[in-house]
Amino acid sequence: MLTFYVSEYRKRLQRAKESMELQGIDVLLITDPANMNYLTGFDAWSFYVHQLLIVIADEDEPIWVGRGIDASAAAITTWLSRDNIIPYPDDYVQSALKHPMDFVADIIRYKGRESRVIGAEYDAYYFTAKNYIQLTKQLPDATFIDGTNLVNWIRIVKSETEIKLIERAATIVSETMVKGIERIQAGVRECDVVADIMHKQISGTDEFGGDYPSIVPLLPSGEKTSACHLTWTDETYKEGDPVILELAGCYNRYHSPLARTVVIGEPTQEMAELADVVIEGIEEALDVVKPGVTCEEVEAAWQKSIKKRGFQKESRIGYSTGLNYPPDWGEHTASLRPGDQTVLEENMVFHMIPGIWFDTYGVEISETFRVTKTGIEVLANVDRKLFIK
Amino acid sequence: MLTFYVSEYRKRLQRAKESMELQGIDVLLITDPANMNYLTGFDAWSFYVHQLLIVIADEDEPIWVGRGIDASAAAITTWLSRDNIIPYPDDYVQSALKHPMDFVADIIRYKGRESRVIGAEYDAYYFTAKNYIQLTKQLPDATFIDGTNLVNWIRIVKSETEIKLIERAATIVSETMVKGIERIQAGVRECDVVADIMHKQISGTDEFGGDYPSIVPLLPSGEKTSACHLTWTDETYKEGDPVILELAGCYNRYHSPLARTVVIGEPTQEMAELADVVIEGIEEALDVVKPGVTCEEVEAAWQKSIKKRGFQKESRIGYSTGLNYPPDWGEHTASLRPGDQTVLEENMVFHMIPGIWFDTYGVEISETFRVTKTGIEVLANVDRKLFIK
Repeated sequence: MLTFYVSEYRKRLQRAKESMELQGIDVLLITDPANMNYLTGFDAWSFYVHQLLIVIADEDEPIWVGRGIDASAAAITTWLSRDNIIPYPDDYVQSALKHPMDFVADIIRYKGRESRVIGAEYDAYYFTAKNYIQLTKQLPDATFIDGTNLVNWIRIVKSETEIKLIERAATIVSETMVKGIERIQAGVRECDVVADIMHKQISGTDEFGGDYPSIVPLLPSGEKTSACHLTWTDETYKEGDPVILELAGCYNRYHSPLARTVVIGEPTQEMAELADVVIEGIEEALDVVKPGVTCEEVEAAWQKSIKKRGFQKESRIGYSTGLNYPPDWGEHTASLRPGDQTVLEENMVFHMIPGIWFDTYGVEISETFRVTKTGIEVLANVDRKLFIK
Repeated sequence: MLTFYVSEYRKRLQRAKESMELQGIDVLLITDPANMNYLTGFDAWSFYVHQLLIVIADEDEPIWVGRGIDASAAAITTWLSRDNIIPYPDDYVQSALKHPMDFVADIIRYKGRESRVIGAEYDAYYFTAKNYIQLTKQLPDATFIDGTNLVNWIRIVKSETEIKLIERAATIVSETMVKGIERIQAGVRECDVVADIMHKQISGTDEFGGDYPSIVPLLPSGEKTSACHLTWTDETYKEGDPVILELAGCYNRYHSPLARTVVIGEPTQEMAELADVVIEGIEEALDVVKPGVTCEEVEAAWQKSIKKRGFQKESRIGYSTGLNYPPDWGEHTASLRPGDQTVLEENMVFHMIPGIWFDTYGVEISETFRVTKTGIEVLANVDRKLFIK
């Protein structure tokens, strides 16, 4: 079931240990499901209960800790030996009496690491305040420090194998976007368009099937296009409605997101102009991308472009993407925004999504791109325009 | 856009304030997206960034705090007045420099509550350790206490309107399950079956469309049926494969989950026997359900039933369900398991899923039920048997 050779997982683990050493961390607790997958291959919808990896600097393998009934998923999907898959009993699950972090503390004590420096992903999904409170209470002699994004920063440069998976995801999203746009028309229910979109996301192509994206399709329509993270309803589309489609293809947990905007009938002049501004801005921002350029320089090119047309936008225009689990396909590391001095390197992958929203409408047109040796590869292949139906 | 009358939201808020008073909480911070929705109607896929409600005991309305670009979603989907929708600037988003809880602390100070008792959902999804650390640092004069599940316990008894939404979800899951079972056969790719399942989940019926369930369809097959939370692959089914289907219908964020097991071809004798044991166990457990009975008594009926056939199972056999967001459709309150003395009341809704898994196979057959005045209403309508294809 492994997606990568064990040697690739081991290389990632080695890099994580190097970062741990730099930050003075002896034991790293990893709850971000994408980081758990990245280091071990672990892949199951079990992140709704507490689970984590314990990475001990001077031990060969990480330890998987999770619910009893998920241990077989760990055995099937990871390269870990059975000794390093340690399930907790079911009475720890969503209980007011026992907490899984007590069990984790026991393991750390058993391993003799209860007085060491323990790093944890303080701001990661699924590492709750209760996890922190319980661990610090159970291990009073340990020194706890914040290890948020330690593994995420390793994920930012993709291997050739990872790029191949993202390219498959891009094939899926291109075909899905075309299908979604085709299906949108007055009188059709929003939910029926989304059903077709999801069908395509999952059935994928004849050659390979799709995985579930970390975010469901976001399809606000009409005035709701002012609110980019609304999902859909069972209302029918009306003549004149604008519709935003933001969705991803996903293959083996790797994503390629994409957004387009459609108008059913004639767009207003404002809307058509806004789309032109966004497209020109994207093109001018993509033009500056190459290794050595910083994230904030890419954003500055966008800002400069839209400014000459009299627009401005305050939110970031993109972020690193790739391997992920709900609720986000962004990697929480580099963002395309002022102040982010991350230097672009070959095989970084970003979703550039410079949407502009006003009180009663908005436009989103985006591209996911890979940084190449000399510039850029745009991953999906869908016309970059305002679609008129 | 509101799913319920404002009076229903206000009644829920009133009950939350009564619980706050009992627990001595002056200010309650709510990050669980289901609880945010329950009190205000808020519904958007924005929980991948920090957002919360601030419920102040002696103020009329809760305050929504979230990312700038999500404020319009709050305006569209909630009953809150614009003054109580407070967006934070975009440079707080996934930044190592600024944290949204600093912004929240500013609001609490502005409201003059910085020395009060502040409750937070310590073990809820999306209330990270960093949230806790940052809030306690910024508000050193406040007393922080654990308010996990305070609102969840209010959610456990459903209103008549909520029951109607769950019944629609049940209609969707019944039709979806039948379709999924129909589609499974040797030579078909797992992803193509899941694509059809998701299509049906979202398109719903002619009368009403579906919402996204909080968990994607879980369809382990073959030996992977030993691992209940695996999703799917693009491999084809083979003659003799068992397949577990665990999925939900969802309508306006309300769920009705259901599981069935299929065998392609002849089941092994062990498998057929295991299915009989599970079905008999479910029936005997459902038989004891009525108001006044405790959760552990329901589980005991199951345990007694399977014991006479020589089986045992250590994980809980069910949990309260209803309104939810990824990653879980369980409510994290009452569980059907030993020690849980929650007394059943009319209009509680549980998913009873007493799966049994061995090293190389497993069986899951489940029902979601509503507690009625005198007994039980099983919500879905799908034959309770091992399906043979």
